[in-house]
Amino acid sequence: MKKEELYRRLEKEILIFDGAMGTMLQQSGLKAGECPEAMNLHHEESIFQIHRKYVEAGCRIIQTNTFGANRIKLDLYGLADQVEAINAKGAAIARKAAGEGCLVAGDMGPIGKLLSPLGPLSYEEAYHTFYEQAKALIEGGVDLINIETMSDIQEAKIAVIAAKDAGDVPVICTMTFQKDLRTLTGTDPETAAAILEALDVAVLGANCSFGPDMMINVLERMYKITKKPLIVQPNAGLPKLVNGETCFDLSPEEMAGYAKTLVAAGANIIGGCCGTTPGHMEAMAKTLSGEKPIQRQTITCSKLSSGSKTVFIDEALPYNIIGECINLTGRKHLMESVRENNFHVIAKEAQSQVTAGAQIIDVNMGIRDGMVREETAMVNGIMAVQRAVDAPLSIDTVNVEVMEAALKVYRGKPLLNSTNGEDASLDRVIHLAKRYGAAILGLTLDQQGIPETVEKRFHLAKKIVNRAVKAGIPKEDIFIDTLTLTAGAQQKWVPDTLKTLRRVKEELGVRTILGVSNISHGLPNRRDLTAAYLAMALEAGLDVPIINPYEEKIWAVLRSANVLTGRDEKAQEYIRWASEKVEAERSKEQKVKKESL
Amino acid sequence: MKKEELYRRLEKEILIFDGAMGTMLQQSGLKAGECPEAMNLHHEESIFQIHRKYVEAGCRIIQTNTFGANRIKLDLYGLADQVEAINAKGAAIARKAAGEGCLVAGDMGPIGKLLSPLGPLSYEEAYHTFYEQAKALIEGGVDLINIETMSDIQEAKIAVIAAKDAGDVPVICTMTFQKDLRTLTGTDPETAAAILEALDVAVLGANCSFGPDMMINVLERMYKITKKPLIVQPNAGLPKLVNGETCFDLSPEEMAGYAKTLVAAGANIIGGCCGTTPGHMEAMAKTLSGEKPIQRQTITCSKLSSGSKTVFIDEALPYNIIGECINLTGRKHLMESVRENNFHVIAKEAQSQVTAGAQIIDVNMGIRDGMVREETAMVNGIMAVQRAVDAPLSIDTVNVEVMEAALKVYRGKPLLNSTNGEDASLDRVIHLAKRYGAAILGLTLDQQGIPETVEKRFHLAKKIVNRAVKAGIPKEDIFIDTLTLTAGAQQKWVPDTLKTLRRVKEELGVRTILGVSNISHGLPNRRDLTAAYLAMALEAGLDVPIINPYEEKIWAVLRSANVLTGRDEKAQEYIRWASEKVEAERSKEQKVKKESL
Ligand SMILES: [Zn+2]
Ligand SMILES: [Zn+2]
Ligand SMILES: [Zn+2]
Repeated sequence: MKKEELYRRLEKEILIFDGAMGTMLQQSGLKAGECPEAMNLHHEESIFQIHRKYVEAGCRIIQTNTFGANRIKLDLYGLADQVEAINAKGAAIARKAAGEGCLVAGDMGPIGKLLSPLGPLSYEEAYHTFYEQAKALIEGGVDLINIETMSDIQEAKIAVIAAKDAGDVPVICTMTFQKDLRTLTGTDPETAAAILEALDVAVLGANCSFGPDMMINVLERMYKITKKPLIVQPNAGLPKLVNGETCFDLSPEEMAGYAKTLVAAGANIIGGCCGTTPGHMEAMAKTLSGEKPIQRQTITCSKLSSGSKTVFIDEALPYNIIGECINLTGRKHLMESVRENNFHVIAKEAQSQVTAGAQIIDVNMGIRDGMVREETAMVNGIMAVQRAVDAPLSIDTVNVEVMEAALKVYRGKPLLNSTNGEDASLDRVIHLAKRYGAAILGLTLDQQGIPETVEKRFHLAKKIVNRAVKAGIPKEDIFIDTLTLTAGAQQKWVPDTLKTLRRVKEELGVRTILGVSNISHGLPNRRDLTAAYLAMALEAGLDVPIINPYEEKIWAVLRSANVLTGRDEKAQEYIRWASEKVEAERSKEQKVKKESL
Repeated sequence: MKKEELYRRLEKEILIFDGAMGTMLQQSGLKAGECPEAMNLHHEESIFQIHRKYVEAGCRIIQTNTFGANRIKLDLYGLADQVEAINAKGAAIARKAAGEGCLVAGDMGPIGKLLSPLGPLSYEEAYHTFYEQAKALIEGGVDLINIETMSDIQEAKIAVIAAKDAGDVPVICTMTFQKDLRTLTGTDPETAAAILEALDVAVLGANCSFGPDMMINVLERMYKITKKPLIVQPNAGLPKLVNGETCFDLSPEEMAGYAKTLVAAGANIIGGCCGTTPGHMEAMAKTLSGEKPIQRQTITCSKLSSGSKTVFIDEALPYNIIGECINLTGRKHLMESVRENNFHVIAKEAQSQVTAGAQIIDVNMGIRDGMVREETAMVNGIMAVQRAVDAPLSIDTVNVEVMEAALKVYRGKPLLNSTNGEDASLDRVIHLAKRYGAAILGLTLDQQGIPETVEKRFHLAKKIVNRAVKAGIPKEDIFIDTLTLTAGAQQKWVPDTLKTLRRVKEELGVRTILGVSNISHGLPNRRDLTAAYLAMALEAGLDVPIINPYEEKIWAVLRSANVLTGRDEKAQEYIRWASEKVEAERSKEQKVKKESL
């Protein structure tokens, strides 16, 4: 099945997904300690009957009995060699049960081991494990892949990448949240949605977690920030022990009572997780019969995410900056620590920048002396920084191998800083962004360097944007940097940077990023010049400055610009800050006066 | 004769103007103490013969024997009632002598008394005196009026206004310079040219003064800054006493030796003053036979002038600011001094602003309490300020009567601050600007207030520009102010001001002025917000901020912006300033350290 086909259905109807398999399996004779997925091989008819009940209940997507059918989990039952057989069979049973008009989703759950550095699992191992299962499911005939009950966003990412590699079917991915509305490893609904959207899943959402009441909030938060259709599969309320057995407290009718609210919160596909039965799904299906999905939000804001936090970049929101200080060039103590393979210093630099106000942290591990491999330094740097701060990162390298290595360990949706108008770089970086779910930063230069005219610089920006859009990267994930030259040595071309920036913003409809500090390189009193240039660049349409967050003057500019561009409504934030500043100056003066008495 | 006809001739040829009349008159029997112009009545034939000699020498413009034929000068000879007769007769004689192809200029010299406050002459008295003479000359049949040997720019202004009122012939005006290349009352060649150009004379230049060698420099300086054709009438070198008689040291051939250099310096009309004879002019005419004028400069820079200094406003030059502090609203000590008719405080405020770096001073004498007439305060304010500083002024009032009263006493080319899109204001202010030689500032509002959209604000700007251009005001004398609203109370419309400004600058091709300080009205820590807004406005295309020059932060922005927009080549000025600043901070720190030891 193609994604477009699924999307056409989702426009017209709320699809009812099936409910729990586990409870039904126990009723069908699954013993404790037995492998549930092995039943595909030995109890085909039982599985078929469970599927049929859901189909008859009115479900329009049923999923294969393959939740734990990956090599690592099956190996616990000594069934590592049955991966293909179990998944293929699971697909075949469901296919047969589905009949006309009902879709089959190949179910994939977590591997059950944590990824490095939290656990023993490497990117490659996880990838191959998911790939193998997905391939078997797809070749077995499923219409789509459903990656579910994910509690680690990094694992979900790898599963999505692998599933998409395995075949051309829509991939759905749902995360499981805890009561604090974060996943076990700390991802909130917006961040999950941002990351999964960037990976271009067909549908994203949440499953398991809790009952439908709390799911409403998760859905609403996702709906607000993503264009993707949403799926929700709540449990049948809260678990309770009745006669030593775990039951759930919502009856089919009670659960169905939430159905329209879930639709109103943005759900396109509604199923059930733990405790739900064909009865629950039948009640749901009846309630939602003829129900249409609500209109999708028009989302134009840009999003960058760490594993646990999303930064929104939008004309209506206060400016964010990218802290530029993790850069080995000219920073001896950073360089030395990297040489000594001590990344605490790098992590601390990230923390200090966040404390100073940076919302996004650039990580540049470019080293020219050949004593440290950039790739090793970058991977270690990214890991150290993402452990230390929850700010999204900008992976700053022109080397695409280094970039890919960083992408494999990064948990969030980073900025790829950078590509440019050179075909080779452009195609490879776009490919990485699509594959790993990242935003890209395109510099207006190519193999010939920076063009001498605004027109030619703009043309390169246009080329980058067109190429990325054609490859399927949404405009909000494309940023252009029109390259700040130094006012000292290249004064003549300084205005061109802002002229090009303005055109890019106005004519190409993408957002802009600019390294600002370079403007004052080599001049005395850099602060004033940099601050003035920053203000001018913001007026020209700069969205995100890359800058030194420790410099107080830039904050005065940013806070002012927030007021002047309507990003700080009623100047509330400015007034708060200004009043503190005025107060601080006053008490400083009084202190000086007292001392001089 | 129409100006266009004169211009057509000036495109094709260098016009030879005649030489001295005085020396020739003495040779024709003029006695010491006799009125030279009375000879028109009693020695018609002698005057005719002098003219003929110049015509036969090859002159293509001869001027009437009416240099001192104004009521005030003639009154010294008891001939006040002969003004019309002497001028009319002078015109008739010259006309008869000129024949075909030679033009007759009605000669008008200074009144011989100083204008108030330097002397007893009022604007009205001077105006009527010049008007009467010019009227008689024009009715007597001259082709054009030549106002010459002016050493006070204010008197020249009044003469030009009166001559233009008297009839529709081209008006030429030449100033006389001293060895320091300033007129007796301090006007330099650029400033003379700027003021006379704004008065829309047909041709401007210099006469008398000194020999042709020093005239070259005067011409060159005028040529660089004005689009007007230039006239030069040097003396025949330096005066010397030979046998008790004043002679001049350049022979006709020596004088003619400078002819081509004068043309190369920009002269379109070349004549002679003291010591020149038909012989000199014949040599000139021969040398310049077939010579063509050099191409006119394309002048696009804006100019505002006091009587002694011109400020140039151009994208290639450092930013100028208009000091906003002479404004009675909310400034109690200024208000009180004006009430007490003590304008020293106003004058001092002007000086302080110039010391702080303001290049142009705004004078606003708007008082709401009715105790002082705005017109009186404005006239006294303008007189006090123009005596105290040489910065050009911005006459800040919406009352056109007050504006005209100020224009009558102002010696330079001011900015009329302001008009707007309302027809009544627009037509009257444009009329005043044309008449008195001023630049105008048009605000993008009308009787309905400030429009709510960028489009409508821009439309008002366009209306103002079109109306002014149609009335003959050159674009460089039209400024638009798109009106800064307060970020505190009108945040929503703040971006519109800069959007409109940018469109005005880009699409209408006029320069922009903006009151900047209003942005932070009512907010705490106004400095940072104002400074950031200033930088953003400069990027949006602001040419001249109206601002508080005492605020240090704005200078950091202006100096930075000069670097960033290429107005401070190689950042030389910035580096000088920044080095001083860094040095000052260092020694301050050391002082603090020493004290704390
Ligand atoms: Zn569950
Ligand atoms: Zn003379
Ligand atoms: Zn003369």
